[in-house]
Amino acid sequence: MFEAVDSPYLVPFNGDFDRRSSATAPPPDVKGKKGLRKELEKLTERLSELQQRFYAHDRYSLLLVFQAMDAAGKDGTVRAVMSGVNPTGCQVFSFKQPSAEERDHDFLWRTSRCLPERGRIGIFNRSYYEEVLVVRVHPEYLQGQQLPEIDDLETLWQHRYESIRDHEKHLARNGTVILKFWLNVSHEEQRQRFLSRLDEPEKNWKFSTGDVRERGFWKQYMRAYQTALTETSRPWAPWYAIPADNKPYMRARVSEIIVRTLESLDLRYPEVSADERANFDEMRTLLQDG
Amino acid sequence: MFEAVDSPYLVPFNGDFDRRSSATAPPPDVKGKKGLRKELEKLTERLSELQQRFYAHDRYSLLLVFQAMDAAGKDGTVRAVMSGVNPTGCQVFSFKQPSAEERDHDFLWRTSRCLPERGRIGIFNRSYYEEVLVVRVHPEYLQGQQLPEIDDLETLWQHRYESIRDHEKHLARNGTVILKFWLNVSHEEQRQRFLSRLDEPEKNWKFSTGDVRERGFWKQYMRAYQTALTETSRPWAPWYAIPADNKPYMRARVSEIIVRTLESLDLRYPEVSADERANFDEMRTLLQDG
Repeated sequence: MFEAVDSPYLVPFNGDFDRRSSATAPPPDVKGKKGLRKELEKLTERLSELQQRFYAHDRYSLLLVFQAMDAAGKDGTVRAVMSGVNPTGCQVFSFKQPSAEERDHDFLWRTSRCLPERGRIGIFNRSYYEEVLVVRVHPEYLQGQQLPEIDDLETLWQHRYESIRDHEKHLARNGTVILKFWLNVSHEEQRQRFLSRLDEPEKNWKFSTGDVRERGFWKQYMRAYQTALTETSRPWAPWYAIPADNKPYMRARVSEIIVRTLESLDLRYPEVSADERANFDEMRTLLQDG
Repeated sequence: MFEAVDSPYLVPFNGDFDRRSSATAPPPDVKGKKGLRKELEKLTERLSELQQRFYAHDRYSLLLVFQAMDAAGKDGTVRAVMSGVNPTGCQVFSFKQPSAEERDHDFLWRTSRCLPERGRIGIFNRSYYEEVLVVRVHPEYLQGQQLPEIDDLETLWQHRYESIRDHEKHLARNGTVILKFWLNVSHEEQRQRFLSRLDEPEKNWKFSTGDVRERGFWKQYMRAYQTALTETSRPWAPWYAIPADNKPYMRARVSEIIVRTLESLDLRYPEVSADERANFDEMRTLLQDG
């Protein structure tokens, strides 16, 4: 089974993750904006080549999960990291509030239908993790889910973590390479970004009063992330907690982890069998005649 | 309703299309490879901007249909034209041989489930048009479709064209902008491309004996394209027959038609209502406090 590539941002598998010591800003010796953009450019070129081989190889699928607080930069990161990649080999799904039909199924149902097939990259902009993040912060949402009677909430969350771990392990065993990114933005940086959505007319349409309301639950969210990441970061489905206050840095780190992961897979173009090769000569003759 | 942008490659709506006078090569005064690549680069940058506005505007969806003989360059065109576009706003579906479940439904069912929602670009690499192209050339495939009894085949094809016209008109009325591209490759150029798949080891895996077999039905295919394009090119769902023997030229022409179409749509960022704007001041105060 696939093994996570190492990184200072890898969430350890032994429960030792503490989000308070998890950086939201880059290290002090970080490159400038221009240097980071150049780095990202090189990485996306490399990713584009690797994706072509990944597609032809047709053995694995790649699932990229993005979770973050509002305005951390999920949309922009997906765009920056995946632009340049052949759109035939990649699909993005953004999961918003679940529909009534979706709530009438188990909480892994709606995302399962969107899982990438072999050879493809699937990107989940939000995911089933919402069920242990926003729903954990607002347990009243459970009432809309018509679940069997619940004895105590803590057991329900523990069962959800277990369901997620089992689901991801099953996927990994069957060829899905899973990488999960938490874009870790600071409370102060989010405030600045919300203010610029209010102040810059071309960003106005992105502003939502609901987002500011959710900001009031910051501490509860941080606790929910801490627990979810600790409970579900595993060698075959690692979480990376990426500093998100500096966008170019964040994008370069995400891209680098994807590139290094694909490089670790030994992707090859399919080989033509001896039988088929024998057939080639016949075909060549046929085509030479017109 | 949306009106097709003009082009020398637009398939006329009055039945005057003759594929024998439809070019497979560019005009003699065409730019060189380098010039065409530069042109495409500018166009894809423009497309990337337009797509962002298209997504925010959230009024239309854009459906791009690609049909062609094998090796005409559908996959490469999709990659070249759409790379650089935010993958969140764009989805590619490649339709191969239909599954048993798909054959048990009407012939528009499987593609209907993949239609792009408002704000998105959906790309069909092959489409429901296969049902009046490959199936028209091989009517024996109809036997697998368990259709109600058929009096005569000609009526069946006429009904299919009508179904397609009605379907596309319905979609157009409801905000889907439909552009259809036939990548028109010559018999000789296809031969050369098949030979290079045999001769260049890194292209071997793309070679299929079945493709060479289908080449034997060239004339029947050309007749099927001629009729299908004539019967279904309409102002709200135009066909463009693009010369495909020169790949850089073909890609630039496809991109140009998409860009010009989006430019004709008057796309705007959503406006914030007066009520919401009043709310902004309150939110600003809240955020300034922390």
